[in-house]
Amino acid sequence: MTTIVDKARNDMAVFEEMESAVRSYSRGWPVVFEKAKGYKLWDKNGNEYIDFFAGAGALNYGHNPSEMQKVMIDYIQNDGVIHSLDMATAPRKKFLESFNEIILKPRNMDYKVMFPGPTGTNTVESALKIARKVTGRDTVIGFTNAFHGMTIGSLSVTGNSFKRNGAGIPLNHAISMPFDQYVDEQDSIAYIERFLEDSGSGVALPAAFILETVQGEGGINAARLEWVKKIEEICRKWDILLIIDDVQAGCGRTGTFFSFEEAGINPDIVCLSKSIGGVGLPMAITLIKPEFDQWGPGEHNGTFRGNNLAFLAATEALNNWKTDAFSQNIKKMSSLFQERMKRIVEKFPELNADLRGRGLMLGIGVHVDGLAGEICAEAFSRGLILETSGAKDEVVKFLPPLIIDEDGIEKGMDILEESIQAALEK
Amino acid sequence: MTTIVDKARNDMAVFEEMESAVRSYSRGWPVVFEKAKGYKLWDKNGNEYIDFFAGAGALNYGHNPSEMQKVMIDYIQNDGVIHSLDMATAPRKKFLESFNEIILKPRNMDYKVMFPGPTGTNTVESALKIARKVTGRDTVIGFTNAFHGMTIGSLSVTGNSFKRNGAGIPLNHAISMPFDQYVDEQDSIAYIERFLEDSGSGVALPAAFILETVQGEGGINAARLEWVKKIEEICRKWDILLIIDDVQAGCGRTGTFFSFEEAGINPDIVCLSKSIGGVGLPMAITLIKPEFDQWGPGEHNGTFRGNNLAFLAATEALNNWKTDAFSQNIKKMSSLFQERMKRIVEKFPELNADLRGRGLMLGIGVHVDGLAGEICAEAFSRGLILETSGAKDEVVKFLPPLIIDEDGIEKGMDILEESIQAALEK
Amino acid sequence: MTTIVDKARNDMAVFEEMESAVRSYSRGWPVVFEKAKGYKLWDKNGNEYIDFFAGAGALNYGHNPSEMQKVMIDYIQNDGVIHSLDMATAPRKKFLESFNEIILKPRNMDYKVMFPGPTGTNTVESALKIARKVTGRDTVIGFTNAFHGMTIGSLSVTGNSFKRNGAGIPLNHAISMPFDQYVDEQDSIAYIERFLEDSGSGVALPAAFILETVQGEGGINAARLEWVKKIEEICRKWDILLIIDDVQAGCGRTGTFFSFEEAGINPDIVCLSKSIGGVGLPMAITLIKPEFDQWGPGEHNGTFRGNNLAFLAATEALNNWKTDAFSQNIKKMSSLFQERMKRIVEKFPELNADLRGRGLMLGIGVHVDGLAGEICAEAFSRGLILETSGAKDEVVKFLPPLIIDEDGIEKGMDILEESIQAALEK
Amino acid sequence: MTTIVDKARNDMAVFEEMESAVRSYSRGWPVVFEKAKGYKLWDKNGNEYIDFFAGAGALNYGHNPSEMQKVMIDYIQNDGVIHSLDMATAPRKKFLESFNEIILKPRNMDYKVMFPGPTGTNTVESALKIARKVTGRDTVIGFTNAFHGMTIGSLSVTGNSFKRNGAGIPLNHAISMPFDQYVDEQDSIAYIERFLEDSGSGVALPAAFILETVQGEGGINAARLEWVKKIEEICRKWDILLIIDDVQAGCGRTGTFFSFEEAGINPDIVCLSKSIGGVGLPMAITLIKPEFDQWGPGEHNGTFRGNNLAFLAATEALNNWKTDAFSQNIKKMSSLFQERMKRIVEKFPELNADLRGRGLMLGIGVHVDGLAGEICAEAFSRGLILETSGAKDEVVKFLPPLIIDEDGIEKGMDILEESIQAALEK
Repeated sequence: MTTIVDKARNDMAVFEEMESAVRSYSRGWPVVFEKAKGYKLWDKNGNEYIDFFAGAGALNYGHNPSEMQKVMIDYIQNDGVIHSLDMATAPRKKFLESFNEIILKPRNMDYKVMFPGPTGTNTVESALKIARKVTGRDTVIGFTNAFHGMTIGSLSVTGNSFKRNGAGIPLNHAISMPFDQYVDEQDSIAYIERFLEDSGSGVALPAAFILETVQGEGGINAARLEWVKKIEEICRKWDILLIIDDVQAGCGRTGTFFSFEEAGINPDIVCLSKSIGGVGLPMAITLIKPEFDQWGPGEHNGTFRGNNLAFLAATEALNNWKTDAFSQNIKKMSSLFQERMKRIVEKFPELNADLRGRGLMLGIGVHVDGLAGEICAEAFSRGLILETSGAKDEVVKFLPPLIIDEDGIEKGMDILEESIQAALEK
Repeated sequence: MTTIVDKARNDMAVFEEMESAVRSYSRGWPVVFEKAKGYKLWDKNGNEYIDFFAGAGALNYGHNPSEMQKVMIDYIQNDGVIHSLDMATAPRKKFLESFNEIILKPRNMDYKVMFPGPTGTNTVESALKIARKVTGRDTVIGFTNAFHGMTIGSLSVTGNSFKRNGAGIPLNHAISMPFDQYVDEQDSIAYIERFLEDSGSGVALPAAFILETVQGEGGINAARLEWVKKIEEICRKWDILLIIDDVQAGCGRTGTFFSFEEAGINPDIVCLSKSIGGVGLPMAITLIKPEFDQWGPGEHNGTFRGNNLAFLAATEALNNWKTDAFSQNIKKMSSLFQERMKRIVEKFPELNADLRGRGLMLGIGVHVDGLAGEICAEAFSRGLILETSGAKDEVVKFLPPLIIDEDGIEKGMDILEESIQAALEK
Repeated sequence: MTTIVDKARNDMAVFEEMESAVRSYSRGWPVVFEKAKGYKLWDKNGNEYIDFFAGAGALNYGHNPSEMQKVMIDYIQNDGVIHSLDMATAPRKKFLESFNEIILKPRNMDYKVMFPGPTGTNTVESALKIARKVTGRDTVIGFTNAFHGMTIGSLSVTGNSFKRNGAGIPLNHAISMPFDQYVDEQDSIAYIERFLEDSGSGVALPAAFILETVQGEGGINAARLEWVKKIEEICRKWDILLIIDDVQAGCGRTGTFFSFEEAGINPDIVCLSKSIGGVGLPMAITLIKPEFDQWGPGEHNGTFRGNNLAFLAATEALNNWKTDAFSQNIKKMSSLFQERMKRIVEKFPELNADLRGRGLMLGIGVHVDGLAGEICAEAFSRGLILETSGAKDEVVKFLPPLIIDEDGIEKGMDILEESIQAALEK
Repeated sequence: MTTIVDKARNDMAVFEEMESAVRSYSRGWPVVFEKAKGYKLWDKNGNEYIDFFAGAGALNYGHNPSEMQKVMIDYIQNDGVIHSLDMATAPRKKFLESFNEIILKPRNMDYKVMFPGPTGTNTVESALKIARKVTGRDTVIGFTNAFHGMTIGSLSVTGNSFKRNGAGIPLNHAISMPFDQYVDEQDSIAYIERFLEDSGSGVALPAAFILETVQGEGGINAARLEWVKKIEEICRKWDILLIIDDVQAGCGRTGTFFSFEEAGINPDIVCLSKSIGGVGLPMAITLIKPEFDQWGPGEHNGTFRGNNLAFLAATEALNNWKTDAFSQNIKKMSSLFQERMKRIVEKFPELNADLRGRGLMLGIGVHVDGLAGEICAEAFSRGLILETSGAKDEVVKFLPPLIIDEDGIEKGMDILEESIQAALEK
């Protein structure tokens, strides 16, 4: 039988020959993708794929939403300014106004908006810099299994040792503390507090904590809301800034625009990227409480801070948040997913599995070495795009576009069940 | 008299209220830009501007080249995959093939292409990481007045103290050596060699040198070609990798596709961004000699490595390099610029000025405190977009789109002369 | 009433005028000391003091043991070589031979002896360097409330924030893990293991653990022997070197020559200083398992590695260890101390006190702010030399010469009781 | 013929078996030393050696000066306090008074005296710490071929790559600048100034410069006095602290008590060790201008800050400085040395030699690979103790006790000539 992978083999040669060994997704999904709409993708040979990956969380609104396509095409046709650094442009203005009206004001949030360069690691680097500058302290506390990016500042607060070793230098000025429920039956809050209160602990008063409320790359680890709240209390008690890295968990992924809304916290700095650009175009913003916005003009800069096509799509995307309907649907779809996940875990005890996550950031931890990866490979050959996560790639991750519907979930999960069956029979 | 700045005042309020204090260009050019084509921009109120800035070098092919607009619109209309990380897509494939055929092969260059995330600092960080990993050494030698980016790795090899202080932490694992002609009548090559050959110098054998052949942000300092050649010889002698950061000086800016072609060197790693994306969309690549491409899959990653609109525009842009004509025109325009620059320096001895640069990366060093900035402000109010550069903002920088024509140069330089006159009369 | 402190006031003026503000003990004990023998000191005005401090642990054999005085005087009178770096001398030879015969061989220990410079921080720095060199790893794990010395390498693994801040630079390449019983009801071993086994923990595989089995400066925290044993097991499991810093707890302080003998462990590197020099003369040695002794000649050096008077006294001191009697007496005296300590804690519930330590390294934790310091001040004015320890100076520390006798203990503890009474009545 | 080395072979076995591979001098001079007086040493077998090494500069007053022997013996016999940390003792008091009366006052110098631990690296570490603390800056500028010690702080400002690599970690927060006459025909002052004045240089404003006016270990490089003066001017201009490391060049080595007296500078911090202790006993002090003595009590500490035997000998040593005679004699002996050195260089053109140094800190640079080492080996076998220095051990170093006389010089230099002859004939 000729598989979709076999058929694509010739097309893949150029990537193998010309691209660096660092390439990754094109290894696991070795076909040339051509079209995409909503929660579906098609490859060059016309094969259809259900997308439970959403561009690693950058496509919360699905592929090519028609209204976003329209505004981009109009803008290009009218010779709109495509690239503008941090010059003032009409789309930047409109984005700022919409972000204020639709997101900040209704939530009683008061932040300055920084455009730090268009990637997740850029917003994290800007957050770390301003936190250190404002406090005059050098240490930042990150958490076990955190993922914040690949540039040296962000990598220093990232947990994964394979990524860290890629730096080729020791990664300093950062301390890793235990995430929620890191060690069985031990309370990580007590541990963290002890280190901070004891002046002999060897851990300096940090500039900031940087936290993902749900860790995506680290294994879909969702902190309990009360734990998140306690981390904020610790920050307040010792006058430490709280940075929430909402690059993956934000923009609706957990059911609310910000992942931390349910926890009722009030971070000092918030990092957004991925889906903030609406349609998958590079864009990032850093929200900074006005009292901490102590940058000098140009103290942090970058060429691609003015991606106007992204601003247009981003503004369209914000319209989804004008009412409660979008949020309600995410919660509904999350329930459907979780039901199916539960049934799967029960049906396949051989997986020795556990369930993880919040909203539409979900995962099944598979405690058989290498099995999660095999399941994803089987799923791909059946038309479902699924990625693993976790330090040992032990988690099957569900990160569908938020516009997924019942039909998409059922079809995807049916494929998953077949794939598990196939992987177990190998 | 109501100026264009006065008229735009209301429109600018939202940026002042909502954006971080870090904003920079919108302070010097306080109008809302709306349209752009070729080497011209228009603001919301219909004022026209000649562009000697080119999006900080990201718009070498001018604003909105029609052929690039067309391919982007077609792609969007056909539901092309917008965002794809490092998955294989049709536009990525076409870009790789064109880059190989049009750029690498004719120059006898053999490199692996890495997509490190879509910004200049991302390609630099990836270059530093692989150089350290491959050599097992931690130190990288950068140069005085270098600019490589704002994330911690890149910032460590950047010279500017204002930017460095923004880190909030000491920047280590990097040593700053004197750029060409840094100290009057002293030979920086002798100096650098002495430090390397003397095992008591306190300077460790570095993993790499990272070099801009023409420093853009650092003051339009063009290294002599023989000096660049000698740096390569030093690298070969001590088995040090040579990284050329061609983010600003590459993609034709100096008259050839790579800035180092005339010097006849063969770098181990090359960083490209800014104009590689054709129309100003975020994109970057890192070229790595195959023997040094020792990454593990995913060891460096990033969400926005698959900006397909950028790949499309980038592929269109490469077509300019199929013949010699594009390159010839850059050199011709460079001559026109330099003639006018010479005349200006002669006409205004009060500037105490010197001439700098290569190709269409040119500058006038103005040795009167603050005067370069005043000239640029006067120029803006007359419809010319001009930026300063250098550690003290002492250089009036000319970085026009490479498609500039004689008329554009003459008009722009006429405005410049008026602006100098006005600034001197203040 | 004129106190001993009042009488000494004039004599102290020169220290206040000429010495740096960093001076410390001369503030708490503001008299000029003149003579010392056994466990007693006398000041210039003839006042006698019982010594529960023992030169911060450097005078385990008491002040001026007659046999040590004799060998030193003879040597000086005979023009012996006083100072010899690491040249071979007769006293160095004799010390090495005795150390081998009396200490190493009977314990089946096989170590190379390094003379790293004559202070505690020197031996620690040498241990950290060789551990990093041998493993090729940069991180060293230290423990909360550890004290290893004031030079940058040692300070990096020291817990006290006041001391750490004195560095003026961030202290990197070290991670602080929880000492035994650091957080109530949480098992620090589980915690440490989790960090090591999880490749996403953000904690790199370290070169070494550095451990004091009883923390002196950190508050007389005695790790349980089974905990020490588990730390060794962790080191073996992950191929991490185990460094025991026995500078204060070694040389008999806990009842055996090495503090770790009872725990039955076999460290890779042992740091000794303080009492190794017998009579309080500067001396230190680093014991290194032969397979890890990978130094190049002179790779670590220092001027004062050849303190021959110290070698002579050190050799005399070793004679105490030829039989079991010395060790037995320490244990007996320890029991006497602990009985009195227990009675004190019961007698003065207002102290809210707890008991700490092992051998003759004992302490009473006083949980009333500032009270421990007041007790020590009262004791001094009554002729008892006592120091506090702990991150908040909350522990009254008992570190008498090991040759203390019953009479000395009773007299000293009587003074202590009076002093507590006086401090509480204030 | 049985040589003195052959005869000592058996005696050396214990050092080879028991001592770490790091041992160094006992390899080059493989005999067991027993006695020493003035500028002579004797080994166990009665062989006599002329000492041109002076314990690496710790024995400026010669071996076993009778008056020092006497005070030490008296003190020990009278049960004087041997070890006292920074408690007040009679010998400490007397030393402080004498140092003030004999050294500081006559030179109009006003410094606080810090006892930082008894070794050279301890005083350097204390100097670096206080300079960083006082200025709030982290970088310290050291010089090429500097030697400041083996602990991490001092090693960071040390040039030698073999020693630096021993750290096992990158050495940061330090920048190496060119010493006087480092690169032929290039002015290092211009270079250093350019780096400081240019805010784009990549070199941060440092906390301090640390300088040896004559580099001992680095190759007997004597900075010209006007260069030293200019370094001070640079420090004043940019408000940088000037630390003079006079550990080896101080205590009379260059003819005056401090090595910088002739240059007429006024350092902010001065490091003294080695010969400050008079007879080779471990001792060090750090002199700090009162306005910079901003330590908290105990912020830097160490066990062996109270070496009373050293204080006694140190006080005796200071008596040599009551008149000018001691200084005059050093200069006279220096002339004798330099005459003989000149004749040797002329007599042996094969050495391709140059002359170096100042006072009794002299050297012959031998520019034939390995020859300097062979000359020293030949000299040892003829009864002359001589060491090499320099990054490649290319310098024959003359560092005799300052009490050397004409006879000693002539005999030593005669042996040297024979040794050169022998080495050349090999």
